Amino acid sequence: MLTSINHIGIAVSDLETSKNLYKSLFNISSFHEEIVESQKVSIASFSLNGILIELTAPISEDSPIAQFIQKKGEGIHHIAFTSNTIQDDLDKAESNGIQLIQKTPIQGAHEMLIAFLHPKSTGGVLMEFCQHSSEL
Amino acid sequence: MLTSINHIGIAVSDLETSKNLYKSLFNISSFHEEIVESQKVSIASFSLNGILIELTAPISEDSPIAQFIQKKGEGIHHIAFTSNTIQDDLDKAESNGIQLIQKTPIQGAHEMLIAFLHPKSTGGVLMEFCQHSSEL
Repeated sequence: MLTSINHIGIAVSDLETSKNLYKSLFNISSFHEEIVESQKVSIASFSLNGILIELTAPISEDSPIAQFIQKKGEGIHHIAFTSNTIQDDLDKAESNGIQLIQKTPIQGAHEMLIAFLHPKSTGGVLMEFCQHSSEL
Repeated sequence: MLTSINHIGIAVSDLETSKNLYKSLFNISSFHEEIVESQKVSIASFSLNGILIELTAPISEDSPIAQFIQKKGEGIHHIAFTSNTIQDDLDKAESNGIQLIQKTPIQGAHEMLIAFLHPKSTGGVLMEFCQHSSEL
């Protein structure tokens, strides 16, 4: 089951510029920073009432985030939902006619297994399902 | 001060189609539905761990949402942050070089006063600040 919003992913060109913007708006003491090899991105995230804002910069030209920025510019990239039964939720979505980008989850940030749904079948919204590895 | 994420706004062409999509993904018992005259939109929202997902459809061709869909297609439109001092937060953002779409708040959904920040100065992210009318 999908239980909550886990994070909002923001595509940014430069992580330091973006961190400074968010520091000027919010009372942020520190960012969690990590490189996610599977997506070829470097992320900096902070929490607002339990939801992460995940600033995501490409570390390679063939990163999905680099391609997104090239096509659409910087901006909101995806919404991630926490699942406690990720494979079941992916299978259920597929059986409801939703196209999956990953049919089985891959490694994401924060020790989560993640999978994306194709925005063509979700009203233009790139959705991610995620579940902590320790729960599987 | 900005205290939390209030909602995520999704631009949709047809509210019923979109409601059916989200019903197929989430365990939604009912939607809050409302027309917001100031934005010329009809909304249907539901809550996931305290954050609203706000499906927003235009009710007029000159609605900002109609213009967004025409330019970029359906998809994630904005992130709204709850403020407990909205005018101060707008003034602070402006003094930090952020361009405001509304310099003083206007009436939004859920009896909130709202104001948007220009995405050109926030890394392509359309941000909304909001505060419940009863707090002002």
